[in-house]
Amino acid sequence: MSERKQFRDLATPAEAHEAIASLDLVPEAETVPLAEARGRILAERVDAELDVPGFDRASMDGYAVRAADTFGADEADPATLELVGTVHAGVEPEVVVGEGECAEISTGAVMPDGADAVVMVERTDEGVDDDAVEVRTSLAPADHVMPAGADIAAGQRALGPGTELTPREIGLLSALGQDEIPVRGKPTVGIVSTGDELVRPGGDLNSDAGQIYDVNSYTIAAGVEEAGGEARLYPHAGDDVAAMEDALTTAADECDLVLSSGSTSASAVDVVYEVIEDRGDLLLHGVSVKPGKPMLVGRLEDSAYVGLPGYPVSALTIFRTFVAPAVRSAAGVPEPRTATVEGTLAAEERYSEGRTRMMPVGLVEDEDGETLVYPVDKGSGATTSLVEADGVVEVDADTEYLAEGEHVRVTLFSPSVRTPAVLALGEDDPAFSRLLDRLNSSRFLPVGSREGLRRLRDGLPDVAVVAGPTRREVASVELSEWEREWGLVVPEGNPENVGGFGTLVDEELRLVNMDRATGLRASVDAELDRLAAARDAESAELSGAIDGFGFTLKAHESPARRVLAGDADAGVGLRSTAEKLGLGFVPVGTQTVRVRANPDRIEKAGVADLQAVLAGVEDVLAALPGFSA
Amino acid sequence: MSERKQFRDLATPAEAHEAIASLDLVPEAETVPLAEARGRILAERVDAELDVPGFDRASMDGYAVRAADTFGADEADPATLELVGTVHAGVEPEVVVGEGECAEISTGAVMPDGADAVVMVERTDEGVDDDAVEVRTSLAPADHVMPAGADIAAGQRALGPGTELTPREIGLLSALGQDEIPVRGKPTVGIVSTGDELVRPGGDLNSDAGQIYDVNSYTIAAGVEEAGGEARLYPHAGDDVAAMEDALTTAADECDLVLSSGSTSASAVDVVYEVIEDRGDLLLHGVSVKPGKPMLVGRLEDSAYVGLPGYPVSALTIFRTFVAPAVRSAAGVPEPRTATVEGTLAAEERYSEGRTRMMPVGLVEDEDGETLVYPVDKGSGATTSLVEADGVVEVDADTEYLAEGEHVRVTLFSPSVRTPAVLALGEDDPAFSRLLDRLNSSRFLPVGSREGLRRLRDGLPDVAVVAGPTRREVASVELSEWEREWGLVVPEGNPENVGGFGTLVDEELRLVNMDRATGLRASVDAELDRLAAARDAESAELSGAIDGFGFTLKAHESPARRVLAGDADAGVGLRSTAEKLGLGFVPVGTQTVRVRANPDRIEKAGVADLQAVLAGVEDVLAALPGFSA
Repeated sequence: MSERKQFRDLATPAEAHEAIASLDLVPEAETVPLAEARGRILAERVDAELDVPGFDRASMDGYAVRAADTFGADEADPATLELVGTVHAGVEPEVVVGEGECAEISTGAVMPDGADAVVMVERTDEGVDDDAVEVRTSLAPADHVMPAGADIAAGQRALGPGTELTPREIGLLSALGQDEIPVRGKPTVGIVSTGDELVRPGGDLNSDAGQIYDVNSYTIAAGVEEAGGEARLYPHAGDDVAAMEDALTTAADECDLVLSSGSTSASAVDVVYEVIEDRGDLLLHGVSVKPGKPMLVGRLEDSAYVGLPGYPVSALTIFRTFVAPAVRSAAGVPEPRTATVEGTLAAEERYSEGRTRMMPVGLVEDEDGETLVYPVDKGSGATTSLVEADGVVEVDADTEYLAEGEHVRVTLFSPSVRTPAVLALGEDDPAFSRLLDRLNSSRFLPVGSREGLRRLRDGLPDVAVVAGPTRREVASVELSEWEREWGLVVPEGNPENVGGFGTLVDEELRLVNMDRATGLRASVDAELDRLAAARDAESAELSGAIDGFGFTLKAHESPARRVLAGDADAGVGLRSTAEKLGLGFVPVGTQTVRVRANPDRIEKAGVADLQAVLAGVEDVLAALPGFSA
Repeated sequence: MSERKQFRDLATPAEAHEAIASLDLVPEAETVPLAEARGRILAERVDAELDVPGFDRASMDGYAVRAADTFGADEADPATLELVGTVHAGVEPEVVVGEGECAEISTGAVMPDGADAVVMVERTDEGVDDDAVEVRTSLAPADHVMPAGADIAAGQRALGPGTELTPREIGLLSALGQDEIPVRGKPTVGIVSTGDELVRPGGDLNSDAGQIYDVNSYTIAAGVEEAGGEARLYPHAGDDVAAMEDALTTAADECDLVLSSGSTSASAVDVVYEVIEDRGDLLLHGVSVKPGKPMLVGRLEDSAYVGLPGYPVSALTIFRTFVAPAVRSAAGVPEPRTATVEGTLAAEERYSEGRTRMMPVGLVEDEDGETLVYPVDKGSGATTSLVEADGVVEVDADTEYLAEGEHVRVTLFSPSVRTPAVLALGEDDPAFSRLLDRLNSSRFLPVGSREGLRRLRDGLPDVAVVAGPTRREVASVELSEWEREWGLVVPEGNPENVGGFGTLVDEELRLVNMDRATGLRASVDAELDRLAAARDAESAELSGAIDGFGFTLKAHESPARRVLAGDADAGVGLRSTAEKLGLGFVPVGTQTVRVRANPDRIEKAGVADLQAVLAGVEDVLAALPGFSA
C-alpha cells in the first residue's frame, strides 16, 4: 500500500466537522401529501392562495340582519323584523335581506346579500306572527360576522421555508386547502457493514467460528432516521475487495451519503481504504478524538463517504458527534433542544492520551435532584455500554484529570434519553430482576455484591443489592431481604453423584466457579472455610484440589450453562437456575439477598417506587424455586 | 330529543380525565422487525438468549499465547515462542496452542484452544527464524481476551418492559441477534369529520356555498401520531343521520378510539349525540373548560369515543389536554420532557366565565432571555391562531384577573415548538415578508402599523414594521427603511380612466379601502387631506362622496383582488401588487417603510440575525416593482 495518500497527523475535531460539512448531502426537495407531512421541513414559503374564510361568515347561530335596522333597539324597545328565509352552513344563500328583513342563519353559514351583522338567537324573541322576529339589542355592522380573508387573506405569507410541520402547521395548510406540500428531501444514507464475521440479527450464528451479530447496521440506521435521514442497509460485504467495492459503489450510486462500519479488522479497513482511494477521494483519515482514530471522510464517486469505527459505542459516538449534525443540516432539521444535560462528576477520572475524549457516561439523580455523572467504560467492544451509558462528556485533549464534583456537560445519545428513576448496583438476582420489570424506569448494573457495596459507600447508586456474607460495613437502609438456596448445579440425574464441595475436592471433576465480586462466591469461600475446619485443613489446599476453581464467570446462570453445554461437571449456582435449565442441583446452603439503599436517597421518587414494588416481593419469591422471604 | 340523558352540570377537568381514563384504549402487543422498531415501546422484558460475545474473543491484533509461557519476559529478556498458525476473525481456529507455542490472531477472532492471553503485536519481534516470535512482556491469563458472556451472559435481563427503543437499545437487541421485537401496539384512532360544509384539502371549494376546508381531520391525525397512536381518517359524513351512523360505527369497528370533530353546527352535534346514545353509552357531555363545552366522552359499540369541539384551536387544545395523554398512556409512550415552558405575562388579562380557561398564547424572549407570554385571541374560528400561538396557559375557573408580569406556565402544543428567534408586528409589506424567508425562525403578525407601534411601546415585539405617516412617538432604533409606491389598483387598461382619488370623489365608482390600522390607509387619509385643502373642502366631505370608502380590508393585496374579481372599480394598494395580479395601477405617492426595533432588544441574537438579513434588502427591493431604497 505504498501509494496510499499520507495523513501525517490526526485531524482536529473542528477539521473533521469542516471536512464533513464540505461534502454535499443536501437532497432535492420533494412533494408529499398533507397526510404524510408531519415532522417534515417546509422547503419553500407557502402563501395563501385564497381568503380564509372564503366568504363573510356568520360566527353565531341567530339571524342575519341589516345593522341599521336595529339602531336603538333594546330589551324595552325591540326592533321587529320580517323573517324572509333561512341560510344553513355549507349551502349557498337563496335569500336577500332587504330593509326591515332578516334571515335565520347557522354558525359558519354564508352571510346573505343585504345583511351585514348577525344577532344571537338569545337576544331575539318570536314575534306576534310566524314571520316576525323581535331583536332586543342594537348591532353594529360586522357584529358576529367574520369577513372573508379575516383569518388569512389571499397573497399573505402563511409559513416560511424551514418550518417544521407539526399538527398546528398542518392545520393551517389544511385551511388553505393545500394537500401537496413542498418539503426538504431526506438525505439517503447507505450503510455498508464490513467484516466476514458479521451475521445479521435473526440469522444463525456460529460462535465457534467467531461469528457475531452485526450491531452497527441497525444502530446507525436508527441514528440516521432520528437525525431526519433515510437509512438503507446494504448486505454486508465480507472482506473481499470485489464484493466490498460492489457494495460501496452501489450504495454511492443510490445514496447521498455512504457510511461503512462493522469490522475492526485491519484487513477490512485496508480494503475499504483501497476502494475509496480508487473510486473516490479521501479527505481525512483519523480524528484526534478517542474513539475516532479509524474515522475516514471522503467522496465515493458522486456521493459523500464516512467510515465509522467498528466498535458499537465508538461507532455511535462518532456518528452522533460528526455525522448526525451533517444529516440534520442536510435534512433541514433543527438541533434537538434537550440533547444535553449538566451534572457533576461522581468520581475522579484520569486520562492522558492527548486526544479529545468522548467519554461514555451514565446519569443518576442525587437526593437534591442534581445529576451525577459516572464514566461507563467496559471497553468499546461491549454492546451493553450502549444502554448503560446515557451520553458522552467531551474531555479536552489537554485535560488529564477531572476531579470528583467537577461540573460537566453531557451530550445525550438521543433526545429521548431519560435519567433512570432509580440506579441499582450489585448482585445479579433473579427475584430483584423480576421486580425491576414492575418499575417504569430503572437501571441495574450487575457488578457483584462487593463492588455494589463499594459504590454505595462512595455515594453513586441509590441502592445496592448484596448477597451472602460481606466484610465491608456501609451505612445503608435495608429496604427488603429474602433468602435464596444455592449449591452446585450438575447434569440432570447427577451422574457423578456429587454430594457437595467435598466430592469436588476428592474426585477428578471439573467445576465452573463464580467471580470473586459476587455474593455467590463469598458463600462458596465460606463453605470451603467450613469444610477445611471440619477436615482440619487449609481452605487453600481444598480449593487448589478442585479442578476449575479458578475458572470464574460473572453472571449467575453462566456456570450452569457451561454444565448444560457439557463443558463442566458442576457449576456454582442457584436452585432456580438448575430447575429453569432442567439440570440437577446439589444444595449447599441458603444466602440472604439484601436490598440496601443510600440513606440520603430514601426520599427520592424512584426509590419510593422501588419500595412499593419490593412490598410485593412475595409473589415473585413464590414463583422462584428455592427462594423464600 | 326529550329522551336525552341529562347532564345538568359541566364536568370538571379532573372528571373528564377520569372518564377518558376509564375507557380502554390499550391495543394488543405486536411484533415488529428490528429495522422498524425505532421509537416503539418494548412490550415485555428481553433476556439474553446467548452469551455476548459467544466465544472467548481476542481484543487486540497480536499473538494468542499461554500466559504461563511469558512469565518473567521483558524487553531485556523476551520469551521465544514457536508460531504454529493463524486465526482470523470469523473463522473457526484450526490450530491448538501448546506449551511454548503461539498463533497469530486478529482482533475479534476466537481464542484457539490452549491459549489464554493475547500479546499485542507491538510488544513482539520476529524471531531468528520464520517460525519464532519474541514476546517482550509478561502476560496474565485473560490479558486482551474478552471472555464469552463478559458483555452480557445468557439468562441476564437485557431490557425491561416499557423501554423506548432508541438507537442504543436497537444496538443491544442486534447484539443479541433478535430481529422480531415484541412492542406495545399503537392505539388506532379513527377520525370522523362532520359537517356538510367541509371539503378535504386538495378538493374544489365552493366559497359562495359556504364551503370550507376540513382543518381538524389532518390536524388531529398529526396530533394522534405525535402521541404514539395510529390515525385513520374516515370520509367526512355530512349531517345526515344514516351516513354519520355508518361512518362512526365503521370507525368504532376498526379502531380503539373514535374521535369526531368538524362542524360546530347544532344539527351535526345533535346527530352525533343521537348515534352515541343509540349505539353506545355517553359518560360525559361538556367540560367546564373554555373551550370544552361541547366535548363528549363515551363508548361507541366496543370502542372508546370522544367528541371534540369544531373550531380548530379548540379541537387541538381539547385533544392535547384530554385525549393525547390517554393515547400516550395506551401506547406506553412517556410524557414528553419539554412540553412546558415558564414565562411572565406580557399584558394583563381579564376573564370571568367561571370555567377553567385554556388560553392560547404566543411566546417571545426578552432581552434577558426571559420568556414573555402574550394571549393570542383572534376567536377560536381563526386557523392562523394555530401557528400564531405556541401553547396554552391553563387559568383557574375562579381567576378573573391576571396582572402583567404574572408568572405563568405554558403547555406547548408540541414538544418541538420553539420560541421564535424574532417577533415582528406591524405593516404587512412584501419586501419585509421576503426578507423573513431568509431567517431560520421568525414570527410576523400583520396587525398594521398603528397596532405594531402601540405594542412596541408596550414592550412586546422585538421589532415593529411601520409604513406611512405616524402620529405616535415611540422610542426605537431604526434598523432599515425603504420606499414603496402606492396608489389605486384598477382593472387592466384602467377602463374608467381613474386619475386618482379626485376621480373617485367626482364619479360613481366603487372603491375598496384599507383598514384604519394600516400604513396604506394613513397615506390615503393624508392624500384626502391634501385633496381637501386643494379643493378648499373638508376631508370628511370627500371621503363621504367615495362609494365604498368605509369598506375596508386588512391585507394589502385584498382590495386589488376584489378589483380582479370584478367586485370594485378601484382598490387601495401597491404597484407591486397590481403588476403581480396583472391589473392597472394609478400611482398616488410613495411611503416609507421603517423597521423599528425595541432598543432593549438590539443585542438579541434573533434581532442581530434580522439586521444581517436587512443588510441585503437591495436585491429584494430590486425584484419588487415600485420599491426602492
